[in-house]
Amino acid sequence: MPFITVKILEGKTKEQKREFIKRVTEAAGETMGIPADKVFIFFEDLTPDNYGKHGQLYADMES
Amino acid sequence: MPFITVKILEGKTKEQKREFIKRVTEAAGETMGIPADKVFIFFEDLTPDNYGKHGQLYADMES
Amino acid sequence: MPFITVKILEGKTKEQKREFIKRVTEAAGETMGIPADKVFIFFEDLTPDNYGKHGQLYADMES
Amino acid sequence: MPFITVKILEGKTKEQKREFIKRVTEAAGETMGIPADKVFIFFEDLTPDNYGKHGQLYADMES
Amino acid sequence: MPFITVKILEGKTKEQKREFIKRVTEAAGETMGIPADKVFIFFEDLTPDNYGKHGQLYADMES
Amino acid sequence: MPFITVKILEGKTKEQKREFIKRVTEAAGETMGIPADKVFIFFEDLTPDNYGKHGQLYADMES
Repeated sequence: MPFITVKILEGKTKEQKREFIKRVTEAAGETMGIPADKVFIFFEDLTPDNYGKHGQLYADMES
Repeated sequence: MPFITVKILEGKTKEQKREFIKRVTEAAGETMGIPADKVFIFFEDLTPDNYGKHGQLYADMES
Repeated sequence: MPFITVKILEGKTKEQKREFIKRVTEAAGETMGIPADKVFIFFEDLTPDNYGKHGQLYADMES
Repeated sequence: MPFITVKILEGKTKEQKREFIKRVTEAAGETMGIPADKVFIFFEDLTPDNYGKHGQLYADMES
Repeated sequence: MPFITVKILEGKTKEQKREFIKRVTEAAGETMGIPADKVFIFFEDLTPDNYGKHGQLYADMES
Repeated sequence: MPFITVKILEGKTKEQKREFIKRVTEAAGETMGIPADKVFIFFEDLTPDNYGKHGQLYADMES
């Protein structure tokens, strides 16, 4: 505990995710006293075709 | 706000998703007074091998 | 199918949710040919103390 | 009802998922009196690059 | 791993949930070879006012 | 984007959540170049009666 799900637009690199996991785990420890081995983080990569914003498909907003 | 996740069997077209996003965003505005730029919609495509119903794998029910 | 989760700030009335369910179910039928009895919708009411935006607790942004 | 989401490391076989669906549906019936046609199960396959544990990317822990 | 979320209509007893956790954990072990200490289960109690089915608010279907 | 859901045992204070939001938003900016106004964080407080671990109800493990 905690279990953290990160829904994010596809394209983030392994290195970026590695760093983000490190920083979030540190934050959980320093702000809520949670040991690193209790922090679980899941990324969900979202494609532009599966994301809607402002009433539009994100893929349409990009083109 | 709101953040809307739509878990649905894979195979819906881009056009269907585009239309659904439009209609749901309109519905959020007309029924709950939420402006379009505050409505976020995420599709999660489910494969028949990853979906269970009636105690069975959906892929088995199709074959 | 589909299973739709609506994460939204607490305070929407029963009537607003009733109407939104009706409209979203209609939209699923008319845009993706999904019968009403296959559409499941779940609301998750979010309290201002449990919602962070722009690096702040939403409750702080309201006060 | 219930709607059960199973977030699990990728690699489980179709046969394993088939058996797990069967057993969980039986469990819902025998412990909570829920008929099989009301139990919906969704698997979410997690890749090692999208999973963080102990402050690290799971993919790094495997290598 | 796995992380299992069970979205279910409110009202299930502690005893029912206790038994369901036991059975699902056993099933994960026997069908997918997963040790009990790696299985995490979360219940999400759904109220009739926050659940839509067949285009209606579940609370209306009950009355 | 990103949309971050934090499922955590109930009892964390407003101050702890405020600090965690701040730190996670900073981390998203510094590791993935995401501006603060694009980061949304949702806490889901889990009660001991609704959490299963090691085949047991967490509430039973506490007593």
